Amino acid sequence: MTDSGRGILTIVSGFAGSGKGTVMNKLISEHDNYALSVSATSRTPRPGEEEGKSYFFKTREQFEDMIANDLLLEHAEYVGNYYGTPKDFVFAMMDAGKDVILEIEVQGAMQVKKKYPDTLLIFLTPPNADEIYRRLKGRGAETDEVIARRMKRAYEETDFIKDYDFLVINDNIDDCTARVHDIIQSAHHTVAHESAVINKLIAGLKKY
Amino acid sequence: MTDSGRGILTIVSGFAGSGKGTVMNKLISEHDNYALSVSATSRTPRPGEEEGKSYFFKTREQFEDMIANDLLLEHAEYVGNYYGTPKDFVFAMMDAGKDVILEIEVQGAMQVKKKYPDTLLIFLTPPNADEIYRRLKGRGAETDEVIARRMKRAYEETDFIKDYDFLVINDNIDDCTARVHDIIQSAHHTVAHESAVINKLIAGLKKY
Repeated sequence: MTDSGRGILTIVSGFAGSGKGTVMNKLISEHDNYALSVSATSRTPRPGEEEGKSYFFKTREQFEDMIANDLLLEHAEYVGNYYGTPKDFVFAMMDAGKDVILEIEVQGAMQVKKKYPDTLLIFLTPPNADEIYRRLKGRGAETDEVIARRMKRAYEETDFIKDYDFLVINDNIDDCTARVHDIIQSAHHTVAHESAVINKLIAGLKKY
Repeated sequence: MTDSGRGILTIVSGFAGSGKGTVMNKLISEHDNYALSVSATSRTPRPGEEEGKSYFFKTREQFEDMIANDLLLEHAEYVGNYYGTPKDFVFAMMDAGKDVILEIEVQGAMQVKKKYPDTLLIFLTPPNADEIYRRLKGRGAETDEVIARRMKRAYEETDFIKDYDFLVINDNIDDCTARVHDIIQSAHHTVAHESAVINKLIAGLKKY
């Protein structure tokens, strides 16, 4: 590694049917520099879920303490349970040189961006609206009503795309994964990320 | 190509000894999506120089007309001759889908950035100051005085690095070229560059 060594914090969001999960799994399995963030939740563990792998399980009181003490990058309440991203886990991995990926939805992404404007925001999408519909329909498990709600939700999410840095079309899982990888690896070379290297260059040149 | 189709405009600058020229030649020879900008100049053609390949050759009067009519992306006067980058050539290649690279120095880069803030600015550097000195010295063709002047010039150029988007260390020509390529290709997927795709998505989702 030639850069400052600290990992990049990336948020990946995307429409239903954008293949976010598949892309994340491919990134993790093909490259050893990535780590996925683990969320905290106040909901009860389900059978088979492991502390620190599936989630960090907290009581409501513990979770509210984390909010009060600003220990979360973002959080939301959903069907009576809290979900959020603990800062300490993410920052520890970044300090260890890992590129940490948060797979979260648009509202959470905006919370993180507000606190940490250097965060890289990537939005994944199927090539067009008809394809979003086709992929949702193709799952076969959902009623027309649920699909209609998801299409409406996708339309609402478009409001936030302008606040992302990159839009990546998932027309092919290999191409899409390679694009996301290149975007994150390029972010290691931004002038902001390389500030330590730049300061060393300036100090070195000053001596001549 | 899945993006809006228009090429990316990239400026590559760098310290003496950064290997800019070698990296540019490798990019052009390894990928067919790149085109190098051709400069205009008011100086007399030298034997072997071809109109439209080496330079667009202009009289002083023609060049001054181009300045007056805002037909240049940037220009400067050097040892009594004008040098500059004609807009029409660059924009025609971008419209044809080519990623156009301008290899220009820092002052010219700032002129272009001011006019076209979307321009991608990449700064190349050897790994450290001693290596810059070593590479200049290694050329063997220059006096100590010239080398000292170039080191001073490099120090002055560091003032502008903060205005670039990316700093790429050239420690290995293959790695450096691959990094520059990934950075430029990633720029095809910025939200700004994909605005046409995004507007189509929004319009498509609205119909559901």
